[in-house]
Amino acid sequence: MVTLVNCFEVPAGREEEFFSMWQQVNTYMHGKKGYLEHKLHRSLAPDARFRFINVACWASQADFDAAHDDGFRALVTKPEWSAFRPFPSLYEVVHEGKAGS
Amino acid sequence: MVTLVNCFEVPAGREEEFFSMWQQVNTYMHGKKGYLEHKLHRSLAPDARFRFINVACWASQADFDAAHDDGFRALVTKPEWSAFRPFPSLYEVVHEGKAGS
Repeated sequence: MVTLVNCFEVPAGREEEFFSMWQQVNTYMHGKKGYLEHKLHRSLAPDARFRFINVACWASQADFDAAHDDGFRALVTKPEWSAFRPFPSLYEVVHEGKAGS
Repeated sequence: MVTLVNCFEVPAGREEEFFSMWQQVNTYMHGKKGYLEHKLHRSLAPDARFRFINVACWASQADFDAAHDDGFRALVTKPEWSAFRPFPSLYEVVHEGKAGS
């Protein structure tokens, strides 16, 4: 399993526009082989460096790479995306814990 | 519930040093009221902008704030931390999904 963490810079006041654009991509990726789950986070503070952060789990890096196909590129090259800067990378979990453990 | 997402810039080759410093803080915070769970992520690519990202759930923002006490500050003001730049913010989950749903 691999985890995509994608941190987004979103100008103040453009959160709804971002969310609409992000949902188009998310809906597309949801149907791809290897997609497991995601959580989109919005900062409590409106002036956080990264207003939104998506954390998405995929079965493998190969599935993740294959999902970024022409359909994906057609969505993320829409001019509306130019206002929203993403910082995506793939991660593995190297340490975890829970309360009481 | 609130989620801390803390993205770390870590110079190449200093991952073990970062991890050791981070574990000191994590062990301290693990025992605090309101700490629920955490996952520390390390990038697959060694040159990712954020080499490590910690995602930690807390019962409330009040618990989170109270946990950042003198003991916490004593740990994160150690000079060794100056090499590792954190980008911490609190988040709420605004959209989530799973495969097959």
